[in-house]
Amino acid sequence: MDPDTGSGSGCGSGRGLGPCSGRSMLAWLVGAAQVVGVACVVLSGVWMGHYRGGFAWDGSAHQFNLHPLCMVLGLVFLYGDAVLVYRVFPNEQRRSVKLLHAGIHLLALVISIVGMVAVFDFHRAQKIPDMYSLHSWCGMTTFILFCLQWVMGLGFFLFPGASSWLRAWYLPLHVFWGVALLALAVGSSLLGITEKLLFSIMSSYPLFDQEGVLANGLGLLLLAFGLLVGFVLSREEFRRPPHPEEEALSVHFKTLTEGGSPCTP
Amino acid sequence: MDPDTGSGSGCGSGRGLGPCSGRSMLAWLVGAAQVVGVACVVLSGVWMGHYRGGFAWDGSAHQFNLHPLCMVLGLVFLYGDAVLVYRVFPNEQRRSVKLLHAGIHLLALVISIVGMVAVFDFHRAQKIPDMYSLHSWCGMTTFILFCLQWVMGLGFFLFPGASSWLRAWYLPLHVFWGVALLALAVGSSLLGITEKLLFSIMSSYPLFDQEGVLANGLGLLLLAFGLLVGFVLSREEFRRPPHPEEEALSVHFKTLTEGGSPCTP
Repeated sequence: MDPDTGSGSGCGSGRGLGPCSGRSMLAWLVGAAQVVGVACVVLSGVWMGHYRGGFAWDGSAHQFNLHPLCMVLGLVFLYGDAVLVYRVFPNEQRRSVKLLHAGIHLLALVISIVGMVAVFDFHRAQKIPDMYSLHSWCGMTTFILFCLQWVMGLGFFLFPGASSWLRAWYLPLHVFWGVALLALAVGSSLLGITEKLLFSIMSSYPLFDQEGVLANGLGLLLLAFGLLVGFVLSREEFRRPPHPEEEALSVHFKTLTEGGSPCTP
Repeated sequence: MDPDTGSGSGCGSGRGLGPCSGRSMLAWLVGAAQVVGVACVVLSGVWMGHYRGGFAWDGSAHQFNLHPLCMVLGLVFLYGDAVLVYRVFPNEQRRSVKLLHAGIHLLALVISIVGMVAVFDFHRAQKIPDMYSLHSWCGMTTFILFCLQWVMGLGFFLFPGASSWLRAWYLPLHVFWGVALLALAVGSSLLGITEKLLFSIMSSYPLFDQEGVLANGLGLLLLAFGLLVGFVLSREEFRRPPHPEEEALSVHFKTLTEGGSPCTP
């Protein structure tokens, strides 16, 4: 297994600060992700609050406005932060970081559920059909997979029932889907932005209407957030010190099942 | 560096067929990606050819129809296949696979350029503004980054000028952007599908119009293609036998710069 063979010996390894300030580079990248992530949430709020009339829970379009805000906050920003905790706290106790990871994901899940209820309730009140658009298909797929991922993560890595072999088998799948779901969440958000703009300002959108430019900017910032988080996860030197179980909720791209794969139980 | 420490010794390693038929699993996954990828191209053709009136190069909407077809064929399907060649041909000569990788990417680039010219030319003929939508912003970003990635890949890995140190420094960036660009290309395609549907069939789309369902299905297949390729790339056991330079155009997620990073020149 690679983590035992020196992956942490390079510059700025998660095991300790190397001469090149890998931790400092990580801090800058995570800081940038936070700035961009907060900007995404703020821009969603400004778009819905200022340009679309604000928020309410009354079945009106103001209730719909909670949907983008909740999904960007929950399924993108908090989700992204949850997968970063293993990089941000390399020296904290494994179990604490694992609980933080699961806790932030739970918060993300709850906020996403509020966002989902907001839009379905709005559709029902306004007699708008559900689930016909590509945004809804992708968004629902992302949401269901996120629920599954959370429940399976809990079952495999937080409850004591799963054997090491099962954990090792599931780990790379959890890792892969962790990253894939962030990409799906960002992609679904961008589809939602496009859909909302074409429903709301189709005639003025081609004239570089202020609202259109703001929403497009929000789309690019969401992309930037996804790319920043993905980049941090892809760098070997930012990984947490290895421990087979510890790696369980850590998102990186290195398969850890060699020597313990389902093929060699 | 992990590849030298036994990463290939696991089940079904790229170095040879392990007892668990890793190569067989890879063959199934790559086969599935091909089926899904071809289905994406065919569905794009059916959507534009049957539901949108066919193809031409006359400045009409029929010229626009070439845009989705070319982008799905070039920037998604061929691009995805180009990044898979290192997994599909683990025992071929390094230089041959590298040339195949660059060659398929070049073909993808040329087809993408035809697709880009088709839409800009159509816009000019129809006096439609350019570059106002989120789809155009994301699509253009993807296209420019793809051009940069191709040119830099050529400069770093095919021309002999770059030092090993430079190659090792650039490698993880090439790897990261290789995967990110596939995600961006799929995402941009989905934005384009949503935009086209709302421009063309906004009133019948909520009624689960046949064209809308077909185009949504195309969107899900594009997602599936991206996920299949991404999954293959994420699995350590499918990696090609390691060689620092050979790894250069191979897309995987393991940083290979340890011990040869810019920090330890």
